[in-house]
Amino acid sequence: MAIIVQKFGGTSVADAEKIRQAAKRVASAADKSHNVVVVASARGRQTDKLIADALELNPNPPEREMDQLLSTGEIQTVSLFAMALAAMGYEAISFTGGQIRMLTDSAHTKARIKSIDSQRIHKHLAQNKIVLIAGFQGIDENENITTLGRGGSDTTAVALAAALGAVECEIYTDVDGIYTADPRIFKTAAKMELISYDEMLEMASLGAGVMHTRAVEFGKNYDVKIHVRSSMAENKGTIITHEVSQMEGVVVSGATVQKDMAKIGLVGVDNKPGNAARIFANLAAAKVVVNDIMQTEVSAEKANLSFTMGISDLQPAKKAVERIKADIDYDKIFVRDDIAEVSVVGIGMRTHYGVADRMFGALAKARINIDSITTSEIRISCIVDKDQADEALRAVSTAFELDKPAHERIKNT
Amino acid sequence: MAIIVQKFGGTSVADAEKIRQAAKRVASAADKSHNVVVVASARGRQTDKLIADALELNPNPPEREMDQLLSTGEIQTVSLFAMALAAMGYEAISFTGGQIRMLTDSAHTKARIKSIDSQRIHKHLAQNKIVLIAGFQGIDENENITTLGRGGSDTTAVALAAALGAVECEIYTDVDGIYTADPRIFKTAAKMELISYDEMLEMASLGAGVMHTRAVEFGKNYDVKIHVRSSMAENKGTIITHEVSQMEGVVVSGATVQKDMAKIGLVGVDNKPGNAARIFANLAAAKVVVNDIMQTEVSAEKANLSFTMGISDLQPAKKAVERIKADIDYDKIFVRDDIAEVSVVGIGMRTHYGVADRMFGALAKARINIDSITTSEIRISCIVDKDQADEALRAVSTAFELDKPAHERIKNT
Repeated sequence: MAIIVQKFGGTSVADAEKIRQAAKRVASAADKSHNVVVVASARGRQTDKLIADALELNPNPPEREMDQLLSTGEIQTVSLFAMALAAMGYEAISFTGGQIRMLTDSAHTKARIKSIDSQRIHKHLAQNKIVLIAGFQGIDENENITTLGRGGSDTTAVALAAALGAVECEIYTDVDGIYTADPRIFKTAAKMELISYDEMLEMASLGAGVMHTRAVEFGKNYDVKIHVRSSMAENKGTIITHEVSQMEGVVVSGATVQKDMAKIGLVGVDNKPGNAARIFANLAAAKVVVNDIMQTEVSAEKANLSFTMGISDLQPAKKAVERIKADIDYDKIFVRDDIAEVSVVGIGMRTHYGVADRMFGALAKARINIDSITTSEIRISCIVDKDQADEALRAVSTAFELDKPAHERIKNT
Repeated sequence: MAIIVQKFGGTSVADAEKIRQAAKRVASAADKSHNVVVVASARGRQTDKLIADALELNPNPPEREMDQLLSTGEIQTVSLFAMALAAMGYEAISFTGGQIRMLTDSAHTKARIKSIDSQRIHKHLAQNKIVLIAGFQGIDENENITTLGRGGSDTTAVALAAALGAVECEIYTDVDGIYTADPRIFKTAAKMELISYDEMLEMASLGAGVMHTRAVEFGKNYDVKIHVRSSMAENKGTIITHEVSQMEGVVVSGATVQKDMAKIGLVGVDNKPGNAARIFANLAAAKVVVNDIMQTEVSAEKANLSFTMGISDLQPAKKAVERIKADIDYDKIFVRDDIAEVSVVGIGMRTHYGVADRMFGALAKARINIDSITTSEIRISCIVDKDQADEALRAVSTAFELDKPAHERIKNT
C-alpha cells in the first residue's frame, strides 16, 4: 500500500474541534487505501506558553532542559490525535521522537536528523494502523531529547516521508498554497501549482514563510514530493518537486520582499588577500547571519565591500567590524537600517535573458531607487528604501504578470 | 555521599513561585552534602486538564494513548524544576521515566515497576549534579510509555530510594504529617512522629489519603525510611518505618472513617462448598473491589454472607450477585447504601486486649448502633450509619486518647 505522510501545524490542531477536522482528513486518506503517517506540531500557542513558563524560572534556561520541556507539546498533540481517530473507529498509535529512534546530533534547540529507525513504523503500518509521530523532536546518542528548531515539524515530516518511501508529504497549514507574491501586498498574486525545490529554497530564505528551508532541502536531497495545502479547504495546494520541463518556460515564478534588513558598507578596504575572510570570520564569531555580500574594486589597492543582514544582527555586526578596523584598514563604515530587499525567483532565468532589464525598468517606472543589486543563478535581488518596499513588490509582480497562473505566462515570455 | 530522595506533589510545584520554593528545599539538602534525587508530579491541575482534553475527543480513550498523554505533565515539571535550580547556580539534569529505564509491565494506567537502571542516575550524582526524575511513569519492554496509576509519583520516589540505596525518601505534601485521625472531623487529632508500614497500609487503604498504598508497600518490602512532611514548613513530619519497640506500647495508633461505602447481604445462602468462591469470582469478573467479607452460619445448611464495597461498585455488584441466584440458591438479598466504616489501627493490638471492648463501649455511649464488625490482626472496624460517621470517629478517637502524642498514651494503656 502506498504510504502518505500528513503534517498538521499548530493552528490546524489548536483545539478539540480542529483536531477532529484534521483526523477526518487522515481518515479520508486511510479510506482511500493509503497507509497514513501523521506528524503534528504542538497545539496552538502551547509552545509559547511553555517558553514563558521556562523564562519565568530562568531567563537563560539550559538548552537540554528546554528541549526536554518543549518536546512535550508535540507528544500531547499526537496522543490526543490518536484518541480522536480511535473515537472514529480507526486504529491509531502515537510515538515520541525517541520511540521511533529519530536520532539527531546533540545540538540542543537546533539539532539535525542523522537517522530514523523506520522498522517500528512499518510494523504498525503493516497492521493497518495509522501511525502518529510527534514532530520537532529527536534523541541524541545518549537518549537526551533534542529539538530541531524553527520549522522542525516540517523537517520531521519530510524526513519521515524520505525514510518510509512515501509517495507524498502533505503539509497542512492555514494558507492554501504558495503564492507568486505575498497576497497581503500584491492582492492579485496567483497560487502556484508547482514550484521547484530550488525556487522554494530561494523564496523561503527570502522570507516567504510557508515552509522552512531545512525541510525543503531535505525534500530536495531525497526527492520527496511536498504538497503544501490548506487544512480548511479541499482543493489542491502547491506541489514542491524536482524540476519539470514546463517550469523552464516560466521566467519568473515568484517575487518576494524581505523587510527588517540592514546593510553595512565598508569604504576603501585595503584590497589584500585574506581581508574578506577575516571580516566574515569575525562576523561568524559574533553569530551574525550574513545574507548578501557585494564587493567592487575602486582601485588597484582599494575595494568597497558591503553586506546585508537581519536588522537584529546589525549592532553585533557593527561592533565586530569596528573591532578589526586596525587589521583591515578601511577608510570608513556606513550603516543603513532602513532598507528592504525585493527579489524575483525562477529557474527559467537560467535560459532566458532580459529579466534584470525588465525588473530594473519596472522599479524605475515606479520611481524606486535601487541601492544595490545581487544575483544568483535563479534570483535577482534589489535593495530599496524600506518605505518603498511594498510598492516595489507590486511593480515587479505586475511587470512579470504574477497575477496570472504559470501556464498563461509561458506563452508570453 | 548519602543519597536522599525528595518527592514534590502537584500542589508543591503548582506555579513558578512554588517550584522556586521547592528548589530551595532541594538546594538546602544539596548544601548539606547530600546527593539529591528529586521526583515531581505534574503541576497543579495539569493532569486534570489533560484528562479533560482527552475526554473531549474520546469518552473512552485508549489507555496506551492516555499514558503517552499524561506522562508529559511530569516531564514538564522536572525540566522546569531543573531550570529553577540552574538559575540558583546548581547543576541539575532531568529525566523521563524512559530515560532512566523505569521498566514496568504493560498494564497501562496502572503499571507495576519491574526494574530501574540506576547506573545513569549514579553517574550524574557522581558528577555532583542534582538529578530530577519525572514521577508516575515508566516504559514497558516495547518502549511504550506506561503510568503507575493513582499515587504513582510516591511509588516512583520510594522505588528510586530503594534502587539507589537512599538514606531517606522525603514526601513533600500540603499536610505536615500523618494524624491519629482526620483533623477536619476530630479537631484535636495529634500528629504522629512514627508509624509502622503495616499501620500506614491499614490507614491508607481505609481512606487516610496522604500516601498511596502501593508506595507504602514498596517501602515495606525494601525497608525505605519514608518521611511525610509539609513543603511549606520546616518542622519534621511523620516517619513511616519498620516496627520499633516503642510502637508496641501504643494500643491504637490511629482511627479512620470511610464513607461512600455500601454493603450487600445475602440471607440464607446454601452452605455448600464452592459457593463463596463462585460469588467472589463473579464479583471480580464485574471488577468490583470488595472491602470486607462477613459470613455467619445460621443452620447446618444455610449461612448469611455479606460484604462491603465502594458505593460506585454497588450496582455492578448487585447485578453480578443476582445473575447467579439460581446457582447459589440464597433466600433473599438486601442492600445498604447509607453506611460508613469506622476503624482503629495499631500494631499494639497484637499484644494488648480490651481494644474491641473499649471501641464498642465508646460507640454505645455515643448511642451509635453497630451494623457489623470485622477485624484484622492490627485493626478493628465497625460498620455504622453514615449520618453518624463523624460522631463515631470522634467517640472512638476520644476513647483512645488520640488527641495526645503517642509517648503520653503509652503510660495510660
